[in-house]
This record gives sequence, C-alpha cells and structure tokens, in this order.
Amino acid sequence: MFITFEGIDGAGKSTQVKMLRKLLISKGLEVLTLREPGGTDISESIRDILLEVKNDITPIGELLLFAASRAELVQKVIKPALSDHATVLLDRFYDSTSAYQGYGRGLDLAMLHQINRIASCSLEPDITFYLDLSPEDAMIRKFSEKSLPLAFEDEELDRMERSGLEFYTRVRNGYQTIAASQPRRVVTIDATLEPDAIHRKITETIMSRRGTLLQKKEGGVEA
Amino acid sequence: MFITFEGIDGAGKSTQVKMLRKLLISKGLEVLTLREPGGTDISESIRDILLEVKNDITPIGELLLFAASRAELVQKVIKPALSDHATVLLDRFYDSTSAYQGYGRGLDLAMLHQINRIASCSLEPDITFYLDLSPEDAMIRKFSEKSLPLAFEDEELDRMERSGLEFYTRVRNGYQTIAASQPRRVVTIDATLEPDAIHRKITETIMSRRGTLLQKKEGGVEA
Repeated sequence: MFITFEGIDGAGKSTQVKMLRKLLISKGLEVLTLREPGGTDISESIRDILLEVKNDITPIGELLLFAASRAELVQKVIKPALSDHATVLLDRFYDSTSAYQGYGRGLDLAMLHQINRIASCSLEPDITFYLDLSPEDAMIRKFSEKSLPLAFEDEELDRMERSGLEFYTRVRNGYQTIAASQPRRVVTIDATLEPDAIHRKITETIMSRRGTLLQKKEGGVEA
Repeated sequence: MFITFEGIDGAGKSTQVKMLRKLLISKGLEVLTLREPGGTDISESIRDILLEVKNDITPIGELLLFAASRAELVQKVIKPALSDHATVLLDRFYDSTSAYQGYGRGLDLAMLHQINRIASCSLEPDITFYLDLSPEDAMIRKFSEKSLPLAFEDEELDRMERSGLEFYTRVRNGYQTIAASQPRRVVTIDATLEPDAIHRKITETIMSRRGTLLQKKEGGVEA
C-alpha cells in the first residue's frame, strides 16, 4: 500500500506518520517512511536548494526542482519498495505541488498536472490523508512549539514559511478543492482533533479500505 | 537578438561564442554570454548536481533538473537582458534537452516538448547555430586536448562524457533531425571547418537575417 499525508506545516503529519508506522510494524508489515522533498542523495541536494532562505527562486523553477526530487524518489525508492510488497508512508506528494505551487503561487493547474504526472511516473497513492488545519491554528502551534512570538520575521523561519498567512489560506483552499474532487482517494481529517483520535480515524480508514485495495490490486483497474 | 549554439561537446561551441561576442562588442552591441546549465546561483547549484560523477541520476530526474536550471536562467537573466536590448549568446538551450534526453536517452519526445515549453517560458531563439560533428571526431579532439589516451574510463571524464559513443551518435542524429525540421531557426555548420571559416558563416548568417529579425520584432508574428 502507498499512503500519502498532506496538509500545511503544523497540521501534525509527521506525528501521524510515526504513529501509523509503529502500528503497521507491530502488525508485522514492512514499512518505509519517507518525506518530500528528499529521500535520495540527489533529492536531498535539491531539498537543500529549495529550503535555503537566500535562494530567491521563481515559481516555475521551484516547481521543476520539486518535480526532479520526486522523480528520483519514485523511481529509485518508492516503486522498488512497493514491488517488494512494503507499505510506503510518504509525508507530502503531488497534492502538495498542486496546493502550494498551483493554488498557493498561482501557477497554471493544467501545466502542474502535466508536471505531476511526469514527476510521479504515473504512480498514484492508494489513500491520501489530508489533515485539515487553518493557517492561523498552524502558526499558533508552530510558534508555541518554538516559544517564539507570533511574527513572520524570525530568521529561524525558512523561506517556505515566510510566505505568510494569505499564501497558506490559498494553499488550504487548494487542498480542500483537491479533497472534494477526489473523495475516493483523499480522506479529510480535522487536524484540531487529538493525535490519538486522528490516528484512530486513519487506522479505521485503512482497515475499511484494505479489502477494496487488495481486490483492486488483484482484479486490475479500479472501476 | 537571442542566439543559441548547439552541438556535442568538442564541436567548438565555446570558441565560436567567444569569437562572435568579440565581434558584436566591437560593433558597439551590448552582449551577454551564458552557458547551460548554469548562469544563476540556483542554476549553478543544479549544474553541480548534474555534473557530479557519483550521482547516478534517472533520465527523468535529469530532464527536470535541466528544466529547473533553464527556467531560472530564462526568467532571471535572459528575458530581462533581451528587454534591455542586449544580444544574448547562449551555449546550449532546449535543443540540447531534445537531443540528449530525447534522442540520446530515449525519453518521450512529446513529454520533452511540454517540459521544454514550460522551462523556456515559451522563449524561442532567433537563430540557433548547430555545429555538426561526428562523435568520433569529437572524442579525438577532446583527448588530444587533454593529451589522454582515447578511452572512456578516465576519471577526468564527468558523468555526461561517460555515456559513450553510441549515445553521442543518437544525440547527433537527434540534432540533425531537429535542424531538418526547423530549417528557418536552426543553421547547421560543418564543425570540421577551421574556426575562422565557421565564424565567417555565423556572421554572414546573422547579417543576412538581421533585417528579417528586425522586421519580425517590429512587424509582429513571423509568417
């Protein structure tokens, strides 16, 4: 199974990935946990470029760097792992591109769709958990963790975080639009719930889908 | 004017760029000389990844990294320079992507066309000089310059050069196909001629095209 996690920073994706990983391993499954951008030597070099504050990158340059990182990760790590019957848990995939570069930065969605298909080598997640959180709540979480005042100027914030509240509001709207248009793949969960409650919803969804997913894999193309 | 130079390594592109640059500057023109991949901070970081021997990159990852580098160069350097009426001389542009990644590595040409259009932000060269050389001649030139034996194992060769003779033969065939399909933009020159003779052909072409190019810019779309 290939499961992706989406949402703005602070929504609790990495907590949920860890909890699910622990559960699946306890059930005897082979689990590979990854996050984008990164996961291969080349993808990590690309990540360094993308997250570097001083790099004033263009939206199209940013899009293509994310795509390059993803193409490496999919071909070198994810597809081989799925072939070996591992479960892959991925923190961010192409929905992040659509939400951030498309809805957030305003790039043409048809162009993004082309790039997403090329970069993912046509690989689609079996389930995507979208943890829905308002940018305001995300910022409050972020700053309370760091014990920092609520402001955007702090040097500890990387380039992605500097883009501000309006940007994240567009990103959230984008995620909600994606989730509404693909209700079968994308499961929306209220990220203000307690981590344990979110974890229960995730595991319930996986259990209820598991039979369908196995049928799908064995029976060929999904109806 | 936006002039690009294409051909396999060893064809003499950089020599011709230098000679043309000198001539145009002597005529009082503002000239900007660039080479791909590179030309901005981010593009140079991408270049480092691409040329590093140890990086075993996938063809699609390579394609997307070249595209990211190009998108940065076009938007941050080339388009602003052309707006300031500078002449831009560029060593490699999207024909390299088609020739190397498409014909050379076998990537789908329709996909490449999409990526090329996105990465170049729809910017097209006014003239492209394709310096045509057989891979055998290119290798002989390369190794005689370095006083090295004619072999592919040498550690001085970077990753791109290790791909071998068959690869370069496909690349050359690709360039010839591109030149044949776009005879108005792409001017093929026999790269075994003396540098001065090649330079004369280049300057003659530019002089003969200049009126047309000016008409084109003033009169709108080319017929």
